[in-house]
Amino acid sequence: MRNNDRKVNQLRPIHMEVNYVKHPEGSVLITVGDTKVICNASIEDRVPPFMRGSGKGWITAEYAMLPRATEQRNIRESSKGKVSGRTMEIQRLIGRSLRAVVDLEKIGERTVWVDCDVIQADGGTRTASITGAFVAVVLAFASLLEKNVLKQMPVTDFLGATSVGVLPDGTEILDLQYEEDSQAHVDMNIVMTGSGEFVEIQGTGEEATFSMEQLQTMLGLANEGLQDIFTLQKQALGKWAGLIGGSAENE
Amino acid sequence: MRNNDRKVNQLRPIHMEVNYVKHPEGSVLITVGDTKVICNASIEDRVPPFMRGSGKGWITAEYAMLPRATEQRNIRESSKGKVSGRTMEIQRLIGRSLRAVVDLEKIGERTVWVDCDVIQADGGTRTASITGAFVAVVLAFASLLEKNVLKQMPVTDFLGATSVGVLPDGTEILDLQYEEDSQAHVDMNIVMTGSGEFVEIQGTGEEATFSMEQLQTMLGLANEGLQDIFTLQKQALGKWAGLIGGSAENE
Amino acid sequence: MRNNDRKVNQLRPIHMEVNYVKHPEGSVLITVGDTKVICNASIEDRVPPFMRGSGKGWITAEYAMLPRATEQRNIRESSKGKVSGRTMEIQRLIGRSLRAVVDLEKIGERTVWVDCDVIQADGGTRTASITGAFVAVVLAFASLLEKNVLKQMPVTDFLGATSVGVLPDGTEILDLQYEEDSQAHVDMNIVMTGSGEFVEIQGTGEEATFSMEQLQTMLGLANEGLQDIFTLQKQALGKWAGLIGGSAENE
Amino acid sequence: MRNNDRKVNQLRPIHMEVNYVKHPEGSVLITVGDTKVICNASIEDRVPPFMRGSGKGWITAEYAMLPRATEQRNIRESSKGKVSGRTMEIQRLIGRSLRAVVDLEKIGERTVWVDCDVIQADGGTRTASITGAFVAVVLAFASLLEKNVLKQMPVTDFLGATSVGVLPDGTEILDLQYEEDSQAHVDMNIVMTGSGEFVEIQGTGEEATFSMEQLQTMLGLANEGLQDIFTLQKQALGKWAGLIGGSAENE
Amino acid sequence: MRNNDRKVNQLRPIHMEVNYVKHPEGSVLITVGDTKVICNASIEDRVPPFMRGSGKGWITAEYAMLPRATEQRNIRESSKGKVSGRTMEIQRLIGRSLRAVVDLEKIGERTVWVDCDVIQADGGTRTASITGAFVAVVLAFASLLEKNVLKQMPVTDFLGATSVGVLPDGTEILDLQYEEDSQAHVDMNIVMTGSGEFVEIQGTGEEATFSMEQLQTMLGLANEGLQDIFTLQKQALGKWAGLIGGSAENE
Amino acid sequence: MRNNDRKVNQLRPIHMEVNYVKHPEGSVLITVGDTKVICNASIEDRVPPFMRGSGKGWITAEYAMLPRATEQRNIRESSKGKVSGRTMEIQRLIGRSLRAVVDLEKIGERTVWVDCDVIQADGGTRTASITGAFVAVVLAFASLLEKNVLKQMPVTDFLGATSVGVLPDGTEILDLQYEEDSQAHVDMNIVMTGSGEFVEIQGTGEEATFSMEQLQTMLGLANEGLQDIFTLQKQALGKWAGLIGGSAENE
Repeated sequence: MRNNDRKVNQLRPIHMEVNYVKHPEGSVLITVGDTKVICNASIEDRVPPFMRGSGKGWITAEYAMLPRATEQRNIRESSKGKVSGRTMEIQRLIGRSLRAVVDLEKIGERTVWVDCDVIQADGGTRTASITGAFVAVVLAFASLLEKNVLKQMPVTDFLGATSVGVLPDGTEILDLQYEEDSQAHVDMNIVMTGSGEFVEIQGTGEEATFSMEQLQTMLGLANEGLQDIFTLQKQALGKWAGLIGGSAENE
Repeated sequence: MRNNDRKVNQLRPIHMEVNYVKHPEGSVLITVGDTKVICNASIEDRVPPFMRGSGKGWITAEYAMLPRATEQRNIRESSKGKVSGRTMEIQRLIGRSLRAVVDLEKIGERTVWVDCDVIQADGGTRTASITGAFVAVVLAFASLLEKNVLKQMPVTDFLGATSVGVLPDGTEILDLQYEEDSQAHVDMNIVMTGSGEFVEIQGTGEEATFSMEQLQTMLGLANEGLQDIFTLQKQALGKWAGLIGGSAENE
Repeated sequence: MRNNDRKVNQLRPIHMEVNYVKHPEGSVLITVGDTKVICNASIEDRVPPFMRGSGKGWITAEYAMLPRATEQRNIRESSKGKVSGRTMEIQRLIGRSLRAVVDLEKIGERTVWVDCDVIQADGGTRTASITGAFVAVVLAFASLLEKNVLKQMPVTDFLGATSVGVLPDGTEILDLQYEEDSQAHVDMNIVMTGSGEFVEIQGTGEEATFSMEQLQTMLGLANEGLQDIFTLQKQALGKWAGLIGGSAENE
Repeated sequence: MRNNDRKVNQLRPIHMEVNYVKHPEGSVLITVGDTKVICNASIEDRVPPFMRGSGKGWITAEYAMLPRATEQRNIRESSKGKVSGRTMEIQRLIGRSLRAVVDLEKIGERTVWVDCDVIQADGGTRTASITGAFVAVVLAFASLLEKNVLKQMPVTDFLGATSVGVLPDGTEILDLQYEEDSQAHVDMNIVMTGSGEFVEIQGTGEEATFSMEQLQTMLGLANEGLQDIFTLQKQALGKWAGLIGGSAENE
Repeated sequence: MRNNDRKVNQLRPIHMEVNYVKHPEGSVLITVGDTKVICNASIEDRVPPFMRGSGKGWITAEYAMLPRATEQRNIRESSKGKVSGRTMEIQRLIGRSLRAVVDLEKIGERTVWVDCDVIQADGGTRTASITGAFVAVVLAFASLLEKNVLKQMPVTDFLGATSVGVLPDGTEILDLQYEEDSQAHVDMNIVMTGSGEFVEIQGTGEEATFSMEQLQTMLGLANEGLQDIFTLQKQALGKWAGLIGGSAENE
Repeated sequence: MRNNDRKVNQLRPIHMEVNYVKHPEGSVLITVGDTKVICNASIEDRVPPFMRGSGKGWITAEYAMLPRATEQRNIRESSKGKVSGRTMEIQRLIGRSLRAVVDLEKIGERTVWVDCDVIQADGGTRTASITGAFVAVVLAFASLLEKNVLKQMPVTDFLGATSVGVLPDGTEILDLQYEEDSQAHVDMNIVMTGSGEFVEIQGTGEEATFSMEQLQTMLGLANEGLQDIFTLQKQALGKWAGLIGGSAENE
């Protein structure tokens, strides 16, 4: 038992409220314990210059925190006039992960803008962002299906993310909340598809290291937690879930 | 009747959810029709350099919109690396308005940071921000009263804001939503205290002008709407409402 | 009597020197007491991207102070790498005000750049800028009339601005100089047309408020002062004054 | 055999020239095939504000490319006025990795600035940077030992990095050069200590995924290659190699 | 005769209006033909961090143009968010030149800020700036002498600047106006002291070169013109001129 | 004899290693004593917007230092988010100098990007950059000749640069290294063509001045040193040296 009464392999309660904001094509408020992230997916009918004429689409992500999402107020990045390295790293991770399960050719020359804005933070904001953003993106594509702009759901598989880590006493745990995260020796984020393939593994020892054995234990914990996450995504997506990974348009 | 079925002197439904985010000293989610703003007030135990040693406190505000709060996605100001003129104007207005009803000497050398983040926009985001921020600031001071850091509520009066305007057909209306705002010839924001004094009047004709008579009608509409707003603030604040404008600590 | 020997409803001496700088299409040095502003209007034969193809023109303003226009030297905004909120607010006000009296359709797809550079500051720089910029803009259009680029003066009315305020003792006064402005409880800028319509009202209590009665007195003072300002503008414009608000081209 | 005549588990030729630049406390030019990086380590006798008074030191890294290190000229980040997300990600990775094998308490309140400047790029610049920077940092500490500023080498273990990946045909390979990297479906960077512990695993599928089995094969390849890298570091460091991971000062 | 009716060795008419702006310690409006520059010198009672404790003062200069000082409107550097290379070069030149004739030890730990703002440009703005700034700086020191803050004029010699160049037909000329400057093959700025020593020589062939013989002719022309400039400075400075290069305080 | 055992008219050892980096069209590592600069010339098949349609090409230069090229580590300009005045001045000087010996019409609408990156600094980095960049540019054009993109070497003459100065004891010296440069009263950079014409003279007294006689002595020293530099450039360029200043294509 951890000091938050969770088992080592237990996720925090997760909830996804779809259509949270009215303007975006896809919108989800995801809560993972006390972490809350608004994930909005917007469709733009053109792609960045380097992709024009390719016939393919693009997915890009932005991530931010409200200044008081955290215990201490953070200075707004717009006031500082630049985006931090941490923010950029997370943005790149979210975008890359989503692109792994979307058939960019099927969406035509469109850009999906994914905005993940953390309203309240208690650890795991980047993995919650990926899990919620996946649902928002599917909903955005669903809106294009409903308008007959697309003929087929261009999403090839489910996509979820969670964190695992090693506490100072050597215990490997699943889904770290802030207090655990700040003392953990190892922090690893796993992004995985519904069929169990890895999209991204980012394991980091901050002033510490980890062994092959610890790595394997953490990968096991992550796999366990992600099965629950995929189930929750299916529920949130309702009828649209059935189209993911689907085949040709005339089926 | 306007084409949204409101009377010319009718506010949209307003709701304030207090303690919306857990970390800030004061937090409110205000909804005015489809406009939704998270207003967080944070207390910092020091003042900006130009006020050090003055024995007085300071209140400053920041305002932002999520990129997809609007019909069209906006570029994030942190990505652009600078804050727009519109944002700065609104930030300055919110801070100035709140300072008019707070006795800065009574809060000691502390800064109140007010963050107004628009989650969903449908007109009137700056006035909703002021109305909600007022409640968040009172709650933040309440937390200092509970901890005995302050002995008296340093807020001298209620503070609310609303908009009035003139439609192309010459009708003066109260509380413009986005569709009305974008076609109005005149747009005026009024910030007022509970005792009916003006804190700020900002009336603007964009490629248009307005007469003294229209001005008087608009001021009347605003006054009417603001009485309802003060009532809602009192309800949201509960027991803390009674301390506003109160006198000496030993009463 | 105020301590500068002016009556409460008395403007400072105002002078406008036309064609002050040789390159701009319209150029005015306006002095209002010790406040001196160079107002230059430049014509560019295209409009910003968002207006292309509209057949309409645009007017935009920039405002700056020389570092030593003020008692204390200010850091140059180009050195800071960003424009302050105050500057942006003033720039937006000047541009918006001028657009209210110019028929943008009549100027075709052209941009008027208005540059207001404060050489010496003693209060009222933004209202002096508007009053002077109006004259510079009329002169710029006059140069287009002379070259037969335009056939009709596209200016629909005179436009002037002044400030009013409330001193700590409750007296309402017209045209605040710096010393008065820095102690006033209320500061209000009024932009008005020659036919007495309001273009902009910006009244602000900084850590103070004002009543409906005070508002009415201030509006009266402003109206009085602006009549003198319109007379001075007429004199400065000479023969071009007669074309303002004029009707069809063959008259 | 790959089309560059290397075996799947074969590193490119690696060479490290120590004391390459004369001013830094530690300086290495590392070449890995056609990739060339100058790694300089500088000692500053103070730490960043957030660490003052902690008694501990800090290691931070910066990474850049000459504009023409690559096939196509890149715009200089100083000209763009901001550092890209990719650069920030690499800088954070290098700093974090080095901190994992340095006892920050033993270096006192000093900052080690590590500059990795890529002179010529052909894939693997971030892993070459870590491998070379490790040697530069040890040399910088050696200079402090020689001056008796430090009494003990504060480095607890060797540290090296390499890349592994999966080619489109499914082959797992070691040490990708640019041509391979640009077509690989999976790219993974491994940072490891001399005793075989992981410091960082960053595996990424760009528009692709990878299985648990592929992960294990890649980890094996990386481990193989890193043994050679540690041997080369030992040679480059000469007598200083023996002090790494050493125990108390009086031994 | 040049096509502006000047002889090759003839300066344009030069005029200096002292005390042009009221706030600065020293202020001059210099006109050289159609070039007009406001030169303000401000005294600040501290030096930049790198000079604290040195007992010496510092002189630094800033240079800017109003957007419409030129034939074509320039974008304001504050809008661009950065200062151009040309501006920086000129700022550095003005500051360096003034420091050559001021005894920085005699002014104590004070900074002289010199602001040169070009109101109207017709070639030679940087040399006019130096000539005018010298007078403004002497006046600023004079104000310190009058207040007994300084006991002795810390200026060791007169300082003036002018330009020389080579026209396409090979003629060497003095004091180039804009039209000449834009077609000249060689452009040279000379900064000289009253006693005939060089402070700065900047000779540039833009897509052209010049011979030793041409250099000597240009140096001769500059020397001639500068004698007139020193005479005009003496007249502008009146009684303060006599203190320049003066000796000990008890004389 | 100077305290580095050089005679007053003696250059430091100079070496140029051609084709130092593999990607650029022209690449040179120049070492002048302990000063080392990588000079890369890149050809881009278009010109900046202001030159499009002119049929002419352009040459532009960028200059930077590795942070630890100097005794004290410098903050990276990309981290500061802006380029210093010194850097801009040097970049403009290098570009302007190279353009003086290239027939821009002969290169067609192409841009030559010259990157001078200082690896190690010991005085004279800007003059070493010019000397090395000249060779890199000739090599870049040579690559276009080899590919038959150009038919004739568009370089009209050799181009080299060196520094001269005056030590505190009044001695004029050639090719100042850092220690000399930091104490010199006068510092002058001379850029000259192979036929002995000046391209640029930049002589500066920092808090000092220099006489006509000293100027002549310095010009003589520079001329002497530059003859050696041209000889070394010829050797470095090999067969391409013979095409410089060559005439028509069918010769």
